[in-house]
Amino acid sequence: MATTLGVGLIGSGFMGKAHALGFLNADRVFDLPVRTEPAILADASDAAAARAAAALGFPRSTGDWRALVDDPAVGIVSITTPNVLHREMALRAIAAGKPVYCEKPLAPTAAEAGEMTLAAERAGVATQVGFNYLKNPMVRLARDLVRAGEIGAVRSFRGVHAEDFMTDASNPWTWRLDPSGGGGALADIGSHIIALARHVVGPIAAVTGETATLVKDRPFEGGTRAVEVDDVATAALRFENGAVGTIEANWMATGRKMGLEFEVSGSEGAIRFTQERMNELKLYRTRDPAGVRGFRTIEAGPEHEPYGRFCPAPGHGLGFNDLKAIEVADFLRAIAGERPGHADFREGWEVAKTVEAIYRAAREGGWATVG
Amino acid sequence: MATTLGVGLIGSGFMGKAHALGFLNADRVFDLPVRTEPAILADASDAAAARAAAALGFPRSTGDWRALVDDPAVGIVSITTPNVLHREMALRAIAAGKPVYCEKPLAPTAAEAGEMTLAAERAGVATQVGFNYLKNPMVRLARDLVRAGEIGAVRSFRGVHAEDFMTDASNPWTWRLDPSGGGGALADIGSHIIALARHVVGPIAAVTGETATLVKDRPFEGGTRAVEVDDVATAALRFENGAVGTIEANWMATGRKMGLEFEVSGSEGAIRFTQERMNELKLYRTRDPAGVRGFRTIEAGPEHEPYGRFCPAPGHGLGFNDLKAIEVADFLRAIAGERPGHADFREGWEVAKTVEAIYRAAREGGWATVG
Amino acid sequence: MATTLGVGLIGSGFMGKAHALGFLNADRVFDLPVRTEPAILADASDAAAARAAAALGFPRSTGDWRALVDDPAVGIVSITTPNVLHREMALRAIAAGKPVYCEKPLAPTAAEAGEMTLAAERAGVATQVGFNYLKNPMVRLARDLVRAGEIGAVRSFRGVHAEDFMTDASNPWTWRLDPSGGGGALADIGSHIIALARHVVGPIAAVTGETATLVKDRPFEGGTRAVEVDDVATAALRFENGAVGTIEANWMATGRKMGLEFEVSGSEGAIRFTQERMNELKLYRTRDPAGVRGFRTIEAGPEHEPYGRFCPAPGHGLGFNDLKAIEVADFLRAIAGERPGHADFREGWEVAKTVEAIYRAAREGGWATVG
Amino acid sequence: MATTLGVGLIGSGFMGKAHALGFLNADRVFDLPVRTEPAILADASDAAAARAAAALGFPRSTGDWRALVDDPAVGIVSITTPNVLHREMALRAIAAGKPVYCEKPLAPTAAEAGEMTLAAERAGVATQVGFNYLKNPMVRLARDLVRAGEIGAVRSFRGVHAEDFMTDASNPWTWRLDPSGGGGALADIGSHIIALARHVVGPIAAVTGETATLVKDRPFEGGTRAVEVDDVATAALRFENGAVGTIEANWMATGRKMGLEFEVSGSEGAIRFTQERMNELKLYRTRDPAGVRGFRTIEAGPEHEPYGRFCPAPGHGLGFNDLKAIEVADFLRAIAGERPGHADFREGWEVAKTVEAIYRAAREGGWATVG
Repeated sequence: MATTLGVGLIGSGFMGKAHALGFLNADRVFDLPVRTEPAILADASDAAAARAAAALGFPRSTGDWRALVDDPAVGIVSITTPNVLHREMALRAIAAGKPVYCEKPLAPTAAEAGEMTLAAERAGVATQVGFNYLKNPMVRLARDLVRAGEIGAVRSFRGVHAEDFMTDASNPWTWRLDPSGGGGALADIGSHIIALARHVVGPIAAVTGETATLVKDRPFEGGTRAVEVDDVATAALRFENGAVGTIEANWMATGRKMGLEFEVSGSEGAIRFTQERMNELKLYRTRDPAGVRGFRTIEAGPEHEPYGRFCPAPGHGLGFNDLKAIEVADFLRAIAGERPGHADFREGWEVAKTVEAIYRAAREGGWATVG
Repeated sequence: MATTLGVGLIGSGFMGKAHALGFLNADRVFDLPVRTEPAILADASDAAAARAAAALGFPRSTGDWRALVDDPAVGIVSITTPNVLHREMALRAIAAGKPVYCEKPLAPTAAEAGEMTLAAERAGVATQVGFNYLKNPMVRLARDLVRAGEIGAVRSFRGVHAEDFMTDASNPWTWRLDPSGGGGALADIGSHIIALARHVVGPIAAVTGETATLVKDRPFEGGTRAVEVDDVATAALRFENGAVGTIEANWMATGRKMGLEFEVSGSEGAIRFTQERMNELKLYRTRDPAGVRGFRTIEAGPEHEPYGRFCPAPGHGLGFNDLKAIEVADFLRAIAGERPGHADFREGWEVAKTVEAIYRAAREGGWATVG
Repeated sequence: MATTLGVGLIGSGFMGKAHALGFLNADRVFDLPVRTEPAILADASDAAAARAAAALGFPRSTGDWRALVDDPAVGIVSITTPNVLHREMALRAIAAGKPVYCEKPLAPTAAEAGEMTLAAERAGVATQVGFNYLKNPMVRLARDLVRAGEIGAVRSFRGVHAEDFMTDASNPWTWRLDPSGGGGALADIGSHIIALARHVVGPIAAVTGETATLVKDRPFEGGTRAVEVDDVATAALRFENGAVGTIEANWMATGRKMGLEFEVSGSEGAIRFTQERMNELKLYRTRDPAGVRGFRTIEAGPEHEPYGRFCPAPGHGLGFNDLKAIEVADFLRAIAGERPGHADFREGWEVAKTVEAIYRAAREGGWATVG
Repeated sequence: MATTLGVGLIGSGFMGKAHALGFLNADRVFDLPVRTEPAILADASDAAAARAAAALGFPRSTGDWRALVDDPAVGIVSITTPNVLHREMALRAIAAGKPVYCEKPLAPTAAEAGEMTLAAERAGVATQVGFNYLKNPMVRLARDLVRAGEIGAVRSFRGVHAEDFMTDASNPWTWRLDPSGGGGALADIGSHIIALARHVVGPIAAVTGETATLVKDRPFEGGTRAVEVDDVATAALRFENGAVGTIEANWMATGRKMGLEFEVSGSEGAIRFTQERMNELKLYRTRDPAGVRGFRTIEAGPEHEPYGRFCPAPGHGLGFNDLKAIEVADFLRAIAGERPGHADFREGWEVAKTVEAIYRAAREGGWATVG
């Protein structure tokens, strides 16, 4: 008989709702060793929390996240607030021995991410960081193909995370532009492509970095406020296995809505992917006969774990929220000790170290080692 | 305060699970006038029902669908069994005054579909048929653009529903090939493309029809059994508004996983769509300046109702199960009387009449009128 | 030492220039048993012919096509005039024992096409019809893959030739709309997709047909003139080998510039192609391992004859005019007796018979046999 | 009456044939102020030259390129040899007052490219460098749209030139790997993407650089030989107009045949292009109405100069060799003084300076200024 844990959800915005749906669907879609039920939702005020709780099916709510963390009804703590708040929330949950599911980026600095990681590991608490795109069955297929040697030795990687939500220069200054958050486009969306590069190719040994602020000032409180973080950041990568690569994080990539994409080339094949077409993966094999080689477009289907849990027929397609359900399922299996968690806080820390190395390289020039 | 209705789900296969998830997510994703909770699940046996109920979160289960329909805990009846059973189940639910959500095709014959429709209308019972692809926000966008005159007067339409689940001739004879089900590929997947043609272009006045059985015999109980239904069916269409078109239903379209696609051409533009890339719609406008005209690929986002209920950011993508949640939400609004249901049983009947007209035309040659 | 034949070119419009360039490039790109040089160009008037000859590099010109045909400097006759003129020109060239290269469609009626074919065969004169898309190396690859059994037994085919040059209803009535030309969209662009269906799948035994005139009147000489030919035509096909199919010819397919495309499904694979991306062919193989099956996009390269004659590196791409050079090269090899011509007049006749059968079926309903 | 210049072609490999066809077609496709005719072909030996001359239609041939340059029958010198030979050949032609058409990269070092450029400018001799992809009408459209402000202020650029001709590690060491040629992938194919970045966005002020040799040794004369040049090179760019960007040159991009592609993002739109689909350009405009924004795929047609010279109908497609004809035509107009040449030697020099700056930055770390 599976244990049932109460979920304590902090935050109810984009990611808050995604977490709520993720827990709900993971419980019905998968056959898991741990079941969950909504317990308490916390938000900035009692009233906001009450409204969100009603909408998302949480029986209780509070304006005090500490009360949520401490409440015995809560067995899992989900953190979906801005990342400057992650550390304190996570440490309190860890201190209470409760598994923590925290949105990315894990923390504004690698030091904080490290503190959180070590605390969790010392406490033996399961953790999860919301690098949801790693949970796409087609990304998993990419990683599995690479590991199985299907494309031979990996030689080069090019990853991009391009969106356009900051394109409009007349949009006001927001908290995303606050340098105390750890950075700009690189820290925010770039952490996804770094996590993906690590997932598919492996650990990154050294990086270069270049950053640019393309819109220098934004409207703010009747005047303007200077933007101090990067709108676009690029980096060259040297992987530990000898492969080379680049990444780009760009939140002013006009017209791009979910341009998280990569191409990985090996001695015997290559793989291409874009999250814009998240149910497809392109594979090229040099071992195919001459004259009929080409990138084949593999459509997601039940062969690609865990697609079949959602739908027994191929081509029907998963959506973004389904990735959150997979993430939750993996987290619950880690809580039950069935498998190591991924991406756990340690992975979030590695990504944070990579982000910092890129910023450091951008300031100082040349290559910076990671970690 | 919203009413809460108990869901009685009959069947727990592909569509059974999809219905269960659809109700669950509709309740959390949308802000609906009627809320639902799982009540009873019925399957072929008590044991099978109990297993499925546990997995899908239904507190009760039964091997007797009649008991489910009659149970006062059930306020909505969901039917996901093979279509030869739809009529009896639906009529019983209607007689009990309970709204019915029935998978497509509505019934093996137009006569049965008509009987079900008239019964529901007389009883004033809300109904829903599972033409889930109509619920895709990009299909809705296509219909809205056509209605708004964005592509001018519609001139021609080409629709295809191509999958390959019957490609392998060594796969055994199955219930899908039983002619008592009303037909083959046309009745099964072709009903989707007919519903879509009606949705986007409008009522169909007349049809031609051609059918072919491509694999004549299938393994069956140690021997073989003749296939009597169509593996591929094509038809020409004359719409009431003067447009012309074609459809194809093909369940041996090797390599096609969800090839539900259409192109609609008008005097001032055109639209293209494939469910394989369900989060994209292609639009061409003759009014764009010469030299920069082209089919633009619109990515699904919050501007496309009700995408924003699932995710506030564009490009993140909906999946198949999300379409079921939209379908449920529309059904619940129809139950509450907020808006007319769609696709309701009457629409299912119209589709059934079209399917029959195509089969009739295929037998007799020439054009057949619909209805 | 290769013979050199003088080219007599009748017409200097779109296709006239394409023929001129085709001969020029075939001579340099290929290593052919017959070489050619421009000899005489004929057009509607002496002056028009002189201008065109200067531009296209022909040393002589004339307003009298008969003089061109009869001139001993002319060893090959190229006909690029409207198709009502083809018969007389071709018969005169055949009577003079000169090989004839004639644009498609071969003639307004199958009877005329047959007369031309039989005359050429009796005279032993090599012929070529301008179904240039058959010369695309990727179409050739498709045919070769089908013949080699790479997709198993062919089961179904869907072909479309969609362009939009007639979309604008305010454009005036033109000679293309003259019913004495043999028909509308089907006879004009539909002949390409019929030729392609025959090329890739094989002979067509029977057809149905549906036609529609979507713009009923066009501006003409200060008033309007009724359009009597089809703007869109569709047909179902039964191939002699048991496969089924459909074709559509549509010259009001708004937004489509060169929508000559097909999908052919077999028991072990499938092929997809669109001339819009003429340097790509998509192939699906059921024999690929489960989990990594998909349509692979093969890019044209030197493995695909005769791409390598134009360029030794893959992916660089051929263009429309290159197809004409390949067509000329094949014609010149047929003239030299190295290989049977294709598409020769007999093939043009078969296509004409198919066009007529579709029009007949459209008038009479039901299936019509071809020929 | 147009002057006619004799073409002296040095080299008869891939680019030699492409030049020969380019001159031939330019003369017939365009209406040019200077006409040309094949005069002399030079190759490594008299015999090789004689064979190539016969195939490519040159009346004379020689094994001595100096004799070709000096011959009064030669009015234009075309250089298609390895780039270590370009300088001497070009300087001799310039000294003879003859226009020079030289393949890229212009020379192994910027110093040599500069010497050639200054010599040509002092002599008033027209020059052309074979950056043929700049001649693609869709690349021209991209540049024109950018200049016209259609995408607002340019903010970022990402360019890649990825091919896979060096992927196979068992292929022997070749002259392309000789460091005296000026570099590896960056100098060779990277020069294309640099020229393109300059063409579409503008001058480059500063660069970073990273290079990697992925296959360290190649078979050579019974043993192996170390590879000293870059297999993949990446760089960050700062354009003079404030935009930022990156480029990648990769000749081991497995599966990529002509992956010359870019994305340029501006404050009001974006453009995407890949030479793999050379007849398409994708344009996004923020000024399109919300809900129907998307990258539109513009197909090449007569609106896109000079497509219409090749074909009056859109969508039919140009091929690689057609780009060479456009390049020749532009060169001939520059010879006639009708317009400034592009890409002329000065542009080739600018590209060479950029290549050197990237290599310098790769050695030294940090940013290097160009020039």
